[in-house]
Amino acid sequence: MELSEIYEPIKPDLARVEEMIRSAGQADLPWLPGALARDLRDGGKLAELLAYSLKGQGKRLRPTLTLLAGSFYNYNPERLLPMATAVEILHTATLVHDDAIDNSPVRRGQPTINQLWGDEKAILLGDYLIAQAEELAAATRNPRVITRLARTLMTIAAGELAQGSSAFNPELSRQQYRHRITSKTAALFSLATESGAILSQAPPEAAKILKDYGYNLGIAFQIVDDIMDFIGSEAELGKPVGSDLAQGTLTLPAMLLLERYPENNPVREFFQNRDRPEAIKRAIELVRSSSIVPECYEIASDYCARAGRHLRRLPDNASRRSLLDLADYVIARRG
Amino acid sequence: MELSEIYEPIKPDLARVEEMIRSAGQADLPWLPGALARDLRDGGKLAELLAYSLKGQGKRLRPTLTLLAGSFYNYNPERLLPMATAVEILHTATLVHDDAIDNSPVRRGQPTINQLWGDEKAILLGDYLIAQAEELAAATRNPRVITRLARTLMTIAAGELAQGSSAFNPELSRQQYRHRITSKTAALFSLATESGAILSQAPPEAAKILKDYGYNLGIAFQIVDDIMDFIGSEAELGKPVGSDLAQGTLTLPAMLLLERYPENNPVREFFQNRDRPEAIKRAIELVRSSSIVPECYEIASDYCARAGRHLRRLPDNASRRSLLDLADYVIARRG
Repeated sequence: MELSEIYEPIKPDLARVEEMIRSAGQADLPWLPGALARDLRDGGKLAELLAYSLKGQGKRLRPTLTLLAGSFYNYNPERLLPMATAVEILHTATLVHDDAIDNSPVRRGQPTINQLWGDEKAILLGDYLIAQAEELAAATRNPRVITRLARTLMTIAAGELAQGSSAFNPELSRQQYRHRITSKTAALFSLATESGAILSQAPPEAAKILKDYGYNLGIAFQIVDDIMDFIGSEAELGKPVGSDLAQGTLTLPAMLLLERYPENNPVREFFQNRDRPEAIKRAIELVRSSSIVPECYEIASDYCARAGRHLRRLPDNASRRSLLDLADYVIARRG
Repeated sequence: MELSEIYEPIKPDLARVEEMIRSAGQADLPWLPGALARDLRDGGKLAELLAYSLKGQGKRLRPTLTLLAGSFYNYNPERLLPMATAVEILHTATLVHDDAIDNSPVRRGQPTINQLWGDEKAILLGDYLIAQAEELAAATRNPRVITRLARTLMTIAAGELAQGSSAFNPELSRQQYRHRITSKTAALFSLATESGAILSQAPPEAAKILKDYGYNLGIAFQIVDDIMDFIGSEAELGKPVGSDLAQGTLTLPAMLLLERYPENNPVREFFQNRDRPEAIKRAIELVRSSSIVPECYEIASDYCARAGRHLRRLPDNASRRSLLDLADYVIARRG
């Protein structure tokens, strides 16, 4: 199943989201006096930075989730489009700040904002993008989804703080790992689907099903991301293989590797002595040659199955089929 | 006039704002499952960082403005208190990010977050605080003020980007300076007063008067801040004298100095050759011994007069007297 087929039911509105993203990138600041707005837009290359960070490198998966999840009851583009745009822009904001924090030089095969313009501009651009996401969420005039967007960012930031504190620590429980990927990825996925449900006036049970779908899909998506970091190519990943380990982030494949090889474990060796990057290579080879990869895929598949389990209680339509297909796509994707 | 007298009309509610700030600092994340919430709160010292950044070092001027501005029509603490808290927390967030960007080691005489815990934690803490401010604004259930809070952060971030781009540039027009301090300070002051007006259902003309009051007071406040950077003591400032120049930020006293001494100007010299910090000392001495300081105060006083000019059209009450007194206080303050 190609992504373009999955996106088919919401294709015209996703194009309108793309247009809203582009428009947000122009930084017109129309609520300010003209001279001030122009000075702020042009004085610090704001429009250039925004256009660079927002240009369509990604799959626009999160706004797609909002639009699909909003397709079961009162489909209301006037509210769904700004929220879908908000979700994507919030995602971009967290990537810009993460790259600055991690000193990442590339993302999706392109130089990062911090690499091209420095950390200072990356911090401020990220702040602007967060505020832009909040402004778009406020355009829904629905305090519930506005609150949820704010709380999602609190969850993400708290999770990143916790992840930073456990960097290079080989002792991480499966529960802690699930918590990390919940805050890193699943929280935003479930915001995307739940807000679509809320804004289309889904009944509470249906909203819960769609929220849980987003959560489980997000967990599966992140596990596959973590597998890809071991088995993908640099071209597929758009960044070096083994980046997670290099940054001291323990992911599911590395945890299984630690469990399986208690002696002479390359992950433990590297975390204890970061002057040995060759240990990362050994860890990658060991993961690739063991049964760890299929095991991780099985765990991810379980989450996808959970994501789809209750969807059939929703009205049968093309969006429901797309959500089901998306769960398969998440497992099958490369990069 | 002491600040405590000015604060008198809203003293009990400012204490409740202080309590809400303290409570926000506990990072209970009550919308998450318990184990996840505890892990995120404790995993990365979130509560410790929040408590440190939010503890009452400042004057709580901005929430005071919201409460005072909300005192003329339907005083509604249920909406005003979260908004006043949101404004203060947003202010804190911008300070945390600014300090990381500027590599500032101290603020208000205390080590900064970036100094104690590093830039990474400062970026994430700032993001959390921004989101916390948005969540509190959303608790007003008033999309207008939620939108205004988001736009204020967009204005602030865009202004900081512009300021960063013109660092160490001695060519800055008076208009550009006004734009910089509008985005740096006056935008948040006018958000504070306008949101108080909106949430108390002030008629449009009164809301405009209160918004303009906040703007003009903010401009005056920042000009006095910029003067203090030249004439204050390190103890009063809580940071080294001449910090603005050291960071390449051209403020009003430095602009007047450039106009007055076109030859052998120490500001121009330092901006051209940053290896000469002794030029900063000379600039400070020249400003202190010239008529530049009273001139700057006169400009600040003009803005204070403008702030107060239309206040008398509002209902006469203790809050109106406090707002008028605050305009005097802003000129008289030291540190």
